[in-house]
Amino acid sequence: MKAVRFSAFGPPLDVVQVVDETPGELAPGEALVEVVATPINPSDIMTLSGQYGLLPKLPAVPGNEGVGRVVEVSGSSAVRPGQHVFLPMGAGTWRTHLKAKAERLLPLPEGADPLQLAMLSINPPTAELLLHAFIQPQPGEWVMQNAANSAVGRYLITLAKREGLKTVNVVRREDLVPELRELGADVVLVDGPELPAKVREATGGANIRLGIDAVGGSATTRLGDSLAPGGIVVNYGAMSGKGPSLSPAATIFKDVTLRGFWLVSWMNKTPRQEQAALMQRMAKLVAEGVLYAPVEATFPLENIKEALTRAMEGGRQGKVLLTPAGPVGGK
Amino acid sequence: MKAVRFSAFGPPLDVVQVVDETPGELAPGEALVEVVATPINPSDIMTLSGQYGLLPKLPAVPGNEGVGRVVEVSGSSAVRPGQHVFLPMGAGTWRTHLKAKAERLLPLPEGADPLQLAMLSINPPTAELLLHAFIQPQPGEWVMQNAANSAVGRYLITLAKREGLKTVNVVRREDLVPELRELGADVVLVDGPELPAKVREATGGANIRLGIDAVGGSATTRLGDSLAPGGIVVNYGAMSGKGPSLSPAATIFKDVTLRGFWLVSWMNKTPRQEQAALMQRMAKLVAEGVLYAPVEATFPLENIKEALTRAMEGGRQGKVLLTPAGPVGGK
Repeated sequence: MKAVRFSAFGPPLDVVQVVDETPGELAPGEALVEVVATPINPSDIMTLSGQYGLLPKLPAVPGNEGVGRVVEVSGSSAVRPGQHVFLPMGAGTWRTHLKAKAERLLPLPEGADPLQLAMLSINPPTAELLLHAFIQPQPGEWVMQNAANSAVGRYLITLAKREGLKTVNVVRREDLVPELRELGADVVLVDGPELPAKVREATGGANIRLGIDAVGGSATTRLGDSLAPGGIVVNYGAMSGKGPSLSPAATIFKDVTLRGFWLVSWMNKTPRQEQAALMQRMAKLVAEGVLYAPVEATFPLENIKEALTRAMEGGRQGKVLLTPAGPVGGK
Repeated sequence: MKAVRFSAFGPPLDVVQVVDETPGELAPGEALVEVVATPINPSDIMTLSGQYGLLPKLPAVPGNEGVGRVVEVSGSSAVRPGQHVFLPMGAGTWRTHLKAKAERLLPLPEGADPLQLAMLSINPPTAELLLHAFIQPQPGEWVMQNAANSAVGRYLITLAKREGLKTVNVVRREDLVPELRELGADVVLVDGPELPAKVREATGGANIRLGIDAVGGSATTRLGDSLAPGGIVVNYGAMSGKGPSLSPAATIFKDVTLRGFWLVSWMNKTPRQEQAALMQRMAKLVAEGVLYAPVEATFPLENIKEALTRAMEGGRQGKVLLTPAGPVGGK
């Protein structure tokens, strides 16, 4: 049994190593789970480099979500060996096997793509909450986002369309336009200095109240300058490596507000039942194939450095996942 | 009779000219007022250069506040010739004489410094509203601001102290520390990369909920990084020429919000009576000498370019005012 481990914060490729580990005896109520698929999320990269908002005690095993197969159970009928389950969130999932309380292991929906389900717990609820936690969007209303080709961006396009919202989607590459349009994006624009004018033109001068930003820097400024007076920019990432910036015209003269969104904060302040209800809604949509994020590649645990390299590259076609128990066919 | 006029937006020194004008016959209910003192505010500079949130039809006369002396009244007993009055806000005050409805001319408090009263309408209410429009600060609570040596910054120090608040004040020059301390500032710090750490040290790690920003750019970031989780940065100016920027750590992980403040927006949404009450409170404090802003220099109307040059320079000791009716001794 093996795990990815890091003992210091720093450049991800420098700090990770693959080590042997022995999970040890199961306590009553515990289960041993073989990890089938676990993604490399931006938050994992930020954790390794020490930039995340919540850092583990070191040494630690990275990884916060995924799916697995129960190998053994001790004194519990909550799950049975052979059953496929969601891994507990934040469990340190980049390993071949993990021990968990059997009661915390929720069974996977039947027949769904395990790679898609492995990405359930973080990005889909983030997309749903970005749409609803700051305004109550009305059917027919426009919302706007950048990084529209990210997993969150794609989920958001789908979720928005399902409730009758229209989306303005900002990307950095022209070649992404057709596939996002096909996914349901109403407008897809390539970022640039003329963005606010292009948005006005493409939406017929719509009053856009919500701008969702995962890029930071001047991309946030252009998003803010595209919003209606009183609009809200919600920042949830910094793909540019820069903090979000607004123009004085937006903040002072147009009363545009900048807020941040972090799933962890939402979880800390939201009753468990409400969290579970959101997760179940998202799980259903992922299982049905309604919510879908492309997969760039999967890697065995041993190839963690190759996997991280790919996950940190620009121009990817989708998410990078680890498949410690062996190759998993996506659907 | 003369006025400053501009017919295009652009570099202030290029677009202003002094022209002759004839106010013409007074209509019933109107008064002719000689302008005694009118300041050059940052918003005037931004208006001339076309960057302000509200731009006049051109050609226009700049200037938004000041004090004057009634010369003549037609068919009204609201004011009498010789009386000193506040000029109506936004009247285009950079002129030797202006016509106004007599009813809109409020008499000055007796015996107060006309230069100080000329600066009443914009900066003191801005300082008061920055302190109260976003949070309800509690006695003993710390608030933080940069550009602490500006007129607004100084008013804010005084207003905060009067209600038992403590202030952390950020400046760019070490030599400003003693005079701001003397004014009542609890902590005065010179801006720099270590600002958040210095703030923690100087306040004993106080939870600062409100950060007031007139600088923009990375100065806003340092302000945001000094606040407690859930804190609010209020941006009301961009002295650095850059828009306000926050760190992802502040927005995402600490739920710090960025808002803008513009007095014009506040006036548009606030009942006249409430506005008048605020103005009266401020006028009383200015008249009593409690609220005081240093004066850098006064200039006759004809020297408008010299006055603007001084007003746009860094390292000033105070506000620049025009005194079209001749020299006014400050107190």
